[in-house]
Amino acid sequence: MTSAEIITIGDEILIGQIVDTNSAWLAQRLGELGIRVTRMESIADTPDQIHAALRAALSRVPVVLTTGGLGPTSDDRTKHVLLQLFGGRMEAHLPTLEHVRTMFAQRGQPLTESNRSQADVPSSCRVLPNASGTAPGMLFERQGTILIALPGVPFEMRHIMETSGLEALAQHVRADAYYIRHEVVHTYGIAESHLSDSLRTFEQQLPPHIGLAYLPSPSGIRLRLSGSSPELENLEQQLHHLADELQRRVGPYAFGRGDTTLPREVARLLDAQGCTLCTAESCTGGRVATLLTAQPGASAHFVGGVVAYSNALKRSLLGVEASALDEHGAVSPEVVQQMALGARRAMGAHYAVATSGIAGPGGGNPAKPVGLVYIAVASDKQVVVDRLQFGNLRDVNIERAAHSALNTLRLMLLENE
Amino acid sequence: MTSAEIITIGDEILIGQIVDTNSAWLAQRLGELGIRVTRMESIADTPDQIHAALRAALSRVPVVLTTGGLGPTSDDRTKHVLLQLFGGRMEAHLPTLEHVRTMFAQRGQPLTESNRSQADVPSSCRVLPNASGTAPGMLFERQGTILIALPGVPFEMRHIMETSGLEALAQHVRADAYYIRHEVVHTYGIAESHLSDSLRTFEQQLPPHIGLAYLPSPSGIRLRLSGSSPELENLEQQLHHLADELQRRVGPYAFGRGDTTLPREVARLLDAQGCTLCTAESCTGGRVATLLTAQPGASAHFVGGVVAYSNALKRSLLGVEASALDEHGAVSPEVVQQMALGARRAMGAHYAVATSGIAGPGGGNPAKPVGLVYIAVASDKQVVVDRLQFGNLRDVNIERAAHSALNTLRLMLLENE
Repeated sequence: MTSAEIITIGDEILIGQIVDTNSAWLAQRLGELGIRVTRMESIADTPDQIHAALRAALSRVPVVLTTGGLGPTSDDRTKHVLLQLFGGRMEAHLPTLEHVRTMFAQRGQPLTESNRSQADVPSSCRVLPNASGTAPGMLFERQGTILIALPGVPFEMRHIMETSGLEALAQHVRADAYYIRHEVVHTYGIAESHLSDSLRTFEQQLPPHIGLAYLPSPSGIRLRLSGSSPELENLEQQLHHLADELQRRVGPYAFGRGDTTLPREVARLLDAQGCTLCTAESCTGGRVATLLTAQPGASAHFVGGVVAYSNALKRSLLGVEASALDEHGAVSPEVVQQMALGARRAMGAHYAVATSGIAGPGGGNPAKPVGLVYIAVASDKQVVVDRLQFGNLRDVNIERAAHSALNTLRLMLLENE
Repeated sequence: MTSAEIITIGDEILIGQIVDTNSAWLAQRLGELGIRVTRMESIADTPDQIHAALRAALSRVPVVLTTGGLGPTSDDRTKHVLLQLFGGRMEAHLPTLEHVRTMFAQRGQPLTESNRSQADVPSSCRVLPNASGTAPGMLFERQGTILIALPGVPFEMRHIMETSGLEALAQHVRADAYYIRHEVVHTYGIAESHLSDSLRTFEQQLPPHIGLAYLPSPSGIRLRLSGSSPELENLEQQLHHLADELQRRVGPYAFGRGDTTLPREVARLLDAQGCTLCTAESCTGGRVATLLTAQPGASAHFVGGVVAYSNALKRSLLGVEASALDEHGAVSPEVVQQMALGARRAMGAHYAVATSGIAGPGGGNPAKPVGLVYIAVASDKQVVVDRLQFGNLRDVNIERAAHSALNTLRLMLLENE
């Protein structure tokens, strides 16, 4: 089975100024090709460190990917190290130069010397074109070893891999097929320890080449079955059956498989039922709408929403009664229910989701502590109100409240299936 | 100067199922204590790999931090490796057991065997309490070397470090003070190559112990000055003056310093001027409101917003004229201007921000391609409309459009200063 290492280059990673998302994306794509990532490393943007790390990685594994160190600014050194390692001379790659020229002309910006130098690459590489940026990817090959150097900007890196890099890797490993596959079951609304207890027997009965992992986050706990085998078809069938079994055991807490998300699952159910949705958000501040509209095709089911942050807007846009606000406060089952009903009226959708809570860090009191959130979901038949108590962290509370609202909606949609 | 390595443990990182955000957060905190992270590594969750990686790191640097591998589920093996490396025996830590008991009692959930085992730790460690979760942090110390093992769940890990871990590290390195400091200047609305060209002289004149890095993202380009020196006060002054100079050279594109963001800067200006804001979003789908409400204290200036995804809601909630939608389409300067004016009327805020565009991937045509976005900002005195052309990626387009809207608002607010 082919092994690979991923090296991310840049002081900004080591000092923690940016989070490395490239490695995770690359590891997923490599896994799909049957390439196992055995190590990820982050190093500084100095010629010595780059040189040492690349040499070491090339001596250990047949596939090495690097990201970063190729931008137009002077803190980029990778290209010169690659020239040392693989030989050749630095020269302008004319199609890249032409592409850079065109990009700047379209934007009406002048072409500078540092833009122009983006087209210079070692003559020993094959250029992987970068349609969405200026620094191209570079592929070096020597004695059965392949190195792909990519820019660090995530969407440029992805685009290069999708248009040419992954195909080159697939050709490279074709003779050495040993497969890794995963099946993921997504859950929401159950604690990790309870999942783990209820799945103990299931885990004990797993065959030795298949493992189960628990991946918790504010958007739910993913259960991942991972297996490896030289026999692809058997492996995929086995994982598929086990994931079915897992979903049965987890019951209504399980909301989907594969690379789905709670917003996507809600969208799927709404589209299948030909229904529309609107939102009325207070503590989640637009996060529910953002999750829904992040998906292509959202306009088929999402008509819109109101972020009624002030009480005045809860009244004027959603028709919440002043007496309800006075008697129960904005964070109350009464008000969140009126928000959902008012949103349906004002926006004319089949379903309405409403949130009201204390995201924190301030604003709590003993009766209504930080992390208290009410959620309401209204249809033409019913209104469901949930009370939830989260912790002290504003961002986590907002994320959990938004996902809890979508989950309550999902359960209501499932009843209509 | 003290060096450190960070090791993240978990197959889920190597196969790319989760992105490691812990390393970046830890690296920032260590940098503030004058500890330089020389390497980050991600390894698999197997006893052999954990053992080998910990031994190697402990032989190289005096500070090692690990995250992951401590959860209640059976894919966690780190604790037993730590027992092997540092000796002692596994025993229940009674305050932790009590804490776990209380947590489950408060949630009304039964305490299971796997919950209980979270309180078992090697007797050779000092426990770092985990108030927000069940798995405690563990600190091991031997011959001037310190190892802190932390759970992988980001908010639990952060909480442990903030309440006890960072203080322990600060004590550990007190005798070895060599400082790293950074100053960051945030910019929005200028291309990296243009920044780089206009800062060439500035960069050439930097002293050898100070460097400049460009960190681009959809929310702008950060310029980071980094320096290291045994003399803290001098270093900080130098960086401060250089950042001032940088800000002067970048001009209105520079929007702030330190750990600020565009939404925070907008909030600061609104609060300082005693002004309020509302939003009317189409293509950004609530992202502008989400960015604003992610900040504590948002209710002081943010009254609310409308996500008018359908044309019907653009009319009913924002008063956009049917004729404007028919003649110019929803993605037009006319409609976005009416959205901003209508939002001010409907929500009664001093300022209104509106967005309308084609986020993609579908919905474009030659006259209005994917990535075309109009932004309007209205005050009682004026309406500014911007036309922007981004690329093909939905998530990037939404993020850029939301930040561009905030930047246009910021520039209007600055005129009133």
